[in-house]
Amino acid sequence: MKAVVYHGPGEKSLDERPMPELAGATDAIVKVTRTTICGTDLHILKGDVPSCEPGRILGHEGVGIVHSVGQAVSGLAVGDHVLISCISSCGQCEYCRRGMYSHCTTGGWILGNRIDGTQAEYVRIPHAQTSLYRIPAGLDEEALVMLSDILPTGFECGVLNGKVEPGSTVAIVGAGPIGLASLLTAQFYSPAQIIMIDQDPNRLEIAQQFGATACVDARGDAVAQVMKLTGSVGVDCAIEAVGVPATFELCEALVAPGGVIANIGVHGVKADLHLEKLWDRNIAITTRLVDTVSTPMLLKTVRAGRLDPRKLITHRFALSRAMDAYDTFSRAADSHALKVLIEVD
Amino acid sequence: MKAVVYHGPGEKSLDERPMPELAGATDAIVKVTRTTICGTDLHILKGDVPSCEPGRILGHEGVGIVHSVGQAVSGLAVGDHVLISCISSCGQCEYCRRGMYSHCTTGGWILGNRIDGTQAEYVRIPHAQTSLYRIPAGLDEEALVMLSDILPTGFECGVLNGKVEPGSTVAIVGAGPIGLASLLTAQFYSPAQIIMIDQDPNRLEIAQQFGATACVDARGDAVAQVMKLTGSVGVDCAIEAVGVPATFELCEALVAPGGVIANIGVHGVKADLHLEKLWDRNIAITTRLVDTVSTPMLLKTVRAGRLDPRKLITHRFALSRAMDAYDTFSRAADSHALKVLIEVD
Amino acid sequence: MKAVVYHGPGEKSLDERPMPELAGATDAIVKVTRTTICGTDLHILKGDVPSCEPGRILGHEGVGIVHSVGQAVSGLAVGDHVLISCISSCGQCEYCRRGMYSHCTTGGWILGNRIDGTQAEYVRIPHAQTSLYRIPAGLDEEALVMLSDILPTGFECGVLNGKVEPGSTVAIVGAGPIGLASLLTAQFYSPAQIIMIDQDPNRLEIAQQFGATACVDARGDAVAQVMKLTGSVGVDCAIEAVGVPATFELCEALVAPGGVIANIGVHGVKADLHLEKLWDRNIAITTRLVDTVSTPMLLKTVRAGRLDPRKLITHRFALSRAMDAYDTFSRAADSHALKVLIEVD
Amino acid sequence: MKAVVYHGPGEKSLDERPMPELAGATDAIVKVTRTTICGTDLHILKGDVPSCEPGRILGHEGVGIVHSVGQAVSGLAVGDHVLISCISSCGQCEYCRRGMYSHCTTGGWILGNRIDGTQAEYVRIPHAQTSLYRIPAGLDEEALVMLSDILPTGFECGVLNGKVEPGSTVAIVGAGPIGLASLLTAQFYSPAQIIMIDQDPNRLEIAQQFGATACVDARGDAVAQVMKLTGSVGVDCAIEAVGVPATFELCEALVAPGGVIANIGVHGVKADLHLEKLWDRNIAITTRLVDTVSTPMLLKTVRAGRLDPRKLITHRFALSRAMDAYDTFSRAADSHALKVLIEVD
Repeated sequence: MKAVVYHGPGEKSLDERPMPELAGATDAIVKVTRTTICGTDLHILKGDVPSCEPGRILGHEGVGIVHSVGQAVSGLAVGDHVLISCISSCGQCEYCRRGMYSHCTTGGWILGNRIDGTQAEYVRIPHAQTSLYRIPAGLDEEALVMLSDILPTGFECGVLNGKVEPGSTVAIVGAGPIGLASLLTAQFYSPAQIIMIDQDPNRLEIAQQFGATACVDARGDAVAQVMKLTGSVGVDCAIEAVGVPATFELCEALVAPGGVIANIGVHGVKADLHLEKLWDRNIAITTRLVDTVSTPMLLKTVRAGRLDPRKLITHRFALSRAMDAYDTFSRAADSHALKVLIEVD
Repeated sequence: MKAVVYHGPGEKSLDERPMPELAGATDAIVKVTRTTICGTDLHILKGDVPSCEPGRILGHEGVGIVHSVGQAVSGLAVGDHVLISCISSCGQCEYCRRGMYSHCTTGGWILGNRIDGTQAEYVRIPHAQTSLYRIPAGLDEEALVMLSDILPTGFECGVLNGKVEPGSTVAIVGAGPIGLASLLTAQFYSPAQIIMIDQDPNRLEIAQQFGATACVDARGDAVAQVMKLTGSVGVDCAIEAVGVPATFELCEALVAPGGVIANIGVHGVKADLHLEKLWDRNIAITTRLVDTVSTPMLLKTVRAGRLDPRKLITHRFALSRAMDAYDTFSRAADSHALKVLIEVD
Repeated sequence: MKAVVYHGPGEKSLDERPMPELAGATDAIVKVTRTTICGTDLHILKGDVPSCEPGRILGHEGVGIVHSVGQAVSGLAVGDHVLISCISSCGQCEYCRRGMYSHCTTGGWILGNRIDGTQAEYVRIPHAQTSLYRIPAGLDEEALVMLSDILPTGFECGVLNGKVEPGSTVAIVGAGPIGLASLLTAQFYSPAQIIMIDQDPNRLEIAQQFGATACVDARGDAVAQVMKLTGSVGVDCAIEAVGVPATFELCEALVAPGGVIANIGVHGVKADLHLEKLWDRNIAITTRLVDTVSTPMLLKTVRAGRLDPRKLITHRFALSRAMDAYDTFSRAADSHALKVLIEVD
Repeated sequence: MKAVVYHGPGEKSLDERPMPELAGATDAIVKVTRTTICGTDLHILKGDVPSCEPGRILGHEGVGIVHSVGQAVSGLAVGDHVLISCISSCGQCEYCRRGMYSHCTTGGWILGNRIDGTQAEYVRIPHAQTSLYRIPAGLDEEALVMLSDILPTGFECGVLNGKVEPGSTVAIVGAGPIGLASLLTAQFYSPAQIIMIDQDPNRLEIAQQFGATACVDARGDAVAQVMKLTGSVGVDCAIEAVGVPATFELCEALVAPGGVIANIGVHGVKADLHLEKLWDRNIAITTRLVDTVSTPMLLKTVRAGRLDPRKLITHRFALSRAMDAYDTFSRAADSHALKVLIEVD
């Protein structure tokens, strides 16, 4: 089969690889029909993710059709259309029982990282019963690719951790795909203001279309603009969706007394925490690797027409053109790419 | 009347001052019967609290007897024995209505800071109705001085923010009065382990007597010892009760996935936040200036014999010897002082 | 001044009454500009509310302009445009401090019940500072009359108690003004389904326009229809907005395992609680007299355009025609009245 | 092997039965070392539980040693000492993922009900990995039999649902084993008062020993006595641990505004819900079949010495004398039995 393979920092190619096989009783093999590329895949290609070794098939998002199941799998049958979660979860360890699937002792984020991933014709999914979701008939499967990772990440790490609520004020720092996923799902809770902050005017324009109530150009004085928009109080919830010290520290400056900084960004270095200003401000800072506990809820909102994930898809490529898909996605400032869909069959 | 007056960095004296008078319709004048000294008073004397100007009477803790009340005060009568909250709260602004009394727009921590305080024979209390608590008959008033500040602080900022629960593991960094207040009130929730960390063997010995399940000498490898005590997982709740970067960063190293760092310490400088390690650990960091919303609850626990605040009192002085009280309290390592009571009448 | 006065069961009239005067330091006198009639006013007229004595001016909803304030009132000035809360709250008693303003020891629902109300040219408001809300400039004051009672009631007792959340299923039994207020505010949380149940086709048609995803005629087999709509599971949240045993017992039949029955209705008699069916269903049943703690939040959602309360107003009358307003409101099945606005000046 | 077998209403005997065998890949066979009898077993014997058919081996509590495991079981090995949960849970269905193991679509309360139970030498446990708990070395296994059902039931359905907290007031109606389990675990949260209500003076005496702060004889005016003990306010939490209308309705009379009635009792008929008194009291009523989600937490509290479940054991019998054990347990008023242990090997 064809698969996108990582060959060490800066190196990837579309290779011919053998079909995956069932390795455990709780595995399933899924024929991938659509997958996509994540910012994390670019991190791997930069060499930033040492757990991902050369030879690994990339990708942790996608939808497909069940091709075979291990003997201990119940509730899934060959031919079922399924959503693949970016997080593999056994449902049985102490972390899974606490809803922290990201820390599953035999799962977590392993797809396209510690084991072969979804940018291929077939993929082996461990803990299939609790890592795949049957797709209800009639749903737009292309749109559901956005539910593998990006929407639960924006929702859980940003919106739920950030305790967005009716009438509250939210600032989202970073209008890339993750920030926009937070923007879309923050609207579930009817906040009064959602202020998007980015330095790319194109992304801010998209944010406006997606429901932002105000857009702030990060190249100007973002703190001053947010304070103006919030009556000098700051925001109840500041969502960090970039992953560098400057954007995290911007959140520290934006958060109102009693508010939350909800970090989503993948950080490579420490940030300065200004406790001398924050110790008496009654705030919370949260971090989280997405658990995908909200996937059933998100499926219901899509089904009910409360969320349209398709908006995030800007480009489509066949698997044979996966290298072009990577090129387009990695030049997002120029290509205006948000999510780039790869159609497999 | 006699009062302890701040005269600028390093300078204080027991002076003769005029009696306070009612200034607003919601004020009360309280005859102080007992007060105490807080670590924050020492901060003021170092010049670290610019809002406190020379000439100010110090002190924000105490119990006393209502001497007079403004005309809009109801529910309090002359002669009532009362507990003085360190936080003045109007009960009516948006912050008070949200339970954030610390951020009351016309109150907060003002006693012994922006207005004259309790280390005196009489004190004026604004927003008396919601800043004083009538003492039920039969309670030990000396013990209740600990409920003005130190116990609600250890409880709200440490234990409640830290989400201590039955069977959980707690580390408290700093076994001074505030850390010990967290230790006492953490036991309300029956955690499995409460590990105290300090560099003073005397304080650790007291912690053991107060219910710590393990004590760790911070001069050794505290991280290694805590990991050993917790099966290499870390603690569900790390309470920072010192206020310097090193102790906060120690908490970052101790917290388990899914855990909370509850900051109590008053910080003067920034700390390093190791987001490169913490971004995917699903943790929360909280800060808080005590709101004293838990004072009614704490009064009930004292009344029911579930909490004995008297344990924290190590020394007693008459007001005339207030300078000796300060001396004893500021040399805590030598004097083994925890809380130093000042008896006023 | 003119005022609608209760004269005992079945008896009311528009009378000439003396202007109210400030009676306490925390009072305000408000010149009413718009008020409305509540289902509770009809209950009073039936003689169901013994605390309301003959001679009382009716009404507990409205907006107006501050005419005078007691000397202990701060934060409100003569000429301020204000929203009048149906609940008077001191902000200082133990219940108010817990957010249970409905049980304020010197307030609660007293307007138009234990003291004279708002269906008059002027009204005295006790605890003015915490029972009036300044109206931000530019808001539609007519629409805000809906925030005195009906919207916080539908929201707090129905939606908040019912824990409505994204993707969840909600049934609202009763499509009168209160049920419709729940329908409007449930949409803050993006549930997947909101099923309205009533026996009046006209009200169900309005519910459809207001955002119901399905309407069920209560004259048929409502349980069967709801089970069909929910895959035989029942609803996560059943809101009772009528107040008779049959509708409460219908909620018992509709609620899914793990769900909530949120009662809003004012009940005059007991209902049957089928514990033999419910004891192992992991459900909750909640009751509540509105606290109006959500009024600041609701004001923010109106200001942000997330809620349009004006939809609930179907008729308008001058105060001089108040008797006609009552007539129209009490014949709602014929008149198709939801809320009947009374314009005072 | 020997087993206690149900033969229809009023009929049971100690029979010889074949050893159970692994039936599914996620099963385990456990050699039972200790089991006990539950009030529910007596309900079955009265014919009240139609799902339990004649021929069934009774019992859903116990500890034992893993004898064999299905091929999909990981984390458990032959020879492991294990606690058997009364609730079988797959960990993977939607209810399990929400923490509602009691409603597991292929589990729930099935042991000794829909499938053979634990009052036998061996028992087959489906979903073994998530229905058995390895016993840490050094724990008292006899005491842990109390963690199969009675302690999680008292804790989850009574204490957790009842939101017991420091300083709060609790009434527990029924001082049988379940009520006493609530009494023991309520103390995790340091309430100010725990009032036990029963008509059996012996049980009240035990309750006193177990930590009740007051005991009320239900044969007198229980409401009057509780009101006297609570300053005429009622209790924050009323726990129903009997299961008949009179005791539930007593809870309705005891609960304070803002409080919770937490039902544990297994009810056979409806109760009267006095909504005409409760609609405006801001209360909650909860029901729950135990989920055993708290078992890991309870194991930690036992290990830490915060809970001594052994107190509940009053009698011990060999399996060969199981009929005597039933006799003793069913005559609790005379025998003063709480929990009757059956030693199997």
